[in-house]
Amino acid sequence: MNYYAAPIAKLIEAFTKLPGIGSKTAQRLAFYLLDMPQNEAEELAYAIINAKRNVRYCEVCSNITDNDRCNICSDPKRDNSVICVVEDPRDVVAMEKTREYKGLYHVLHGAISPMDGIGPDDIRIKELLARLGDDNVKEVILATNPNIEGEATAMYISKLIKPLGIKTTRIAHGVPVGGDLEYADEVTLMKALEGRREI
Amino acid sequence: MNYYAAPIAKLIEAFTKLPGIGSKTAQRLAFYLLDMPQNEAEELAYAIINAKRNVRYCEVCSNITDNDRCNICSDPKRDNSVICVVEDPRDVVAMEKTREYKGLYHVLHGAISPMDGIGPDDIRIKELLARLGDDNVKEVILATNPNIEGEATAMYISKLIKPLGIKTTRIAHGVPVGGDLEYADEVTLMKALEGRREI
Repeated sequence: MNYYAAPIAKLIEAFTKLPGIGSKTAQRLAFYLLDMPQNEAEELAYAIINAKRNVRYCEVCSNITDNDRCNICSDPKRDNSVICVVEDPRDVVAMEKTREYKGLYHVLHGAISPMDGIGPDDIRIKELLARLGDDNVKEVILATNPNIEGEATAMYISKLIKPLGIKTTRIAHGVPVGGDLEYADEVTLMKALEGRREI
Repeated sequence: MNYYAAPIAKLIEAFTKLPGIGSKTAQRLAFYLLDMPQNEAEELAYAIINAKRNVRYCEVCSNITDNDRCNICSDPKRDNSVICVVEDPRDVVAMEKTREYKGLYHVLHGAISPMDGIGPDDIRIKELLARLGDDNVKEVILATNPNIEGEATAMYISKLIKPLGIKTTRIAHGVPVGGDLEYADEVTLMKALEGRREI
């Protein structure tokens, strides 16, 4: 890497630490930044610093926010009788994009995965149970990922919640819209059959 | 984009301004940075600021550097009788990686392209001619890109230099090593034939 002047080598190295960015892409990004106007390039730098310093977890739902409470938890128009449990803040964004869901969220920040040494205490399940203490909540929707860890986590949480007398649901599995039956794997097809509904 | 807290939205937006980074990748990078330790994430930020502030053009060859002269121009072991003319600082790196070339460089920062309104005065040709004033230089290697603009630039420069009695050469065109004749375009093949040598 001593082909580059030190500040460039350092910039390229910093870029390669990001996911999906190899040395060629890092080089391209670094040179692109060098060609950018000073203020635009520094905008990215300050955006990084600013995001790292100001972003924290919502004190209610653990979604990421720059306030004590996230936009969703502090919105009085949201239905606080439903909590949708997701693994990751990105899943909140995915759900919000449907524009269908009007309830609140709870972000676990992970899923139970004994293989990776992640147990129930390593994700924000305690915080979820604490929220179920008051009588508002009528339903908990488990929207963890449709993989082994997500299923296990949903199972685990549903077993904890059911004794509280709160309705617990799991998002439907089935063939994705716009997909092709031919390319659906057998487990998905089986789930789609199981979940069939009269039309 | 109001699904995200403001600092995150801003970070994602800043990332999408980089080449080859769409909104999905920008989101992935932003969240990855949020999960990184504070100091590692800020390392990238400061690398950007530092590179933008300290990188300038070498006063001799216009390569990018953080000093008045680049590493190559200030290396007494380099052969100052040969100058290799390239379009871009990245081309210097590509040449250096061959570990074959021991001369100096001259970076034009572009190529003549009337279509894009770039004329001979818009790239660093004057600076190159100024370097040929002293008697040291015995050869100028034109290593501009093997496309229309690069060829035109090489032609233009060679016509300026030849009257000075300095040897002017152009890098060879031909089939790339490791390539397949079948996939070489006809112009490349023609050039490869033209440039054939006895073995």
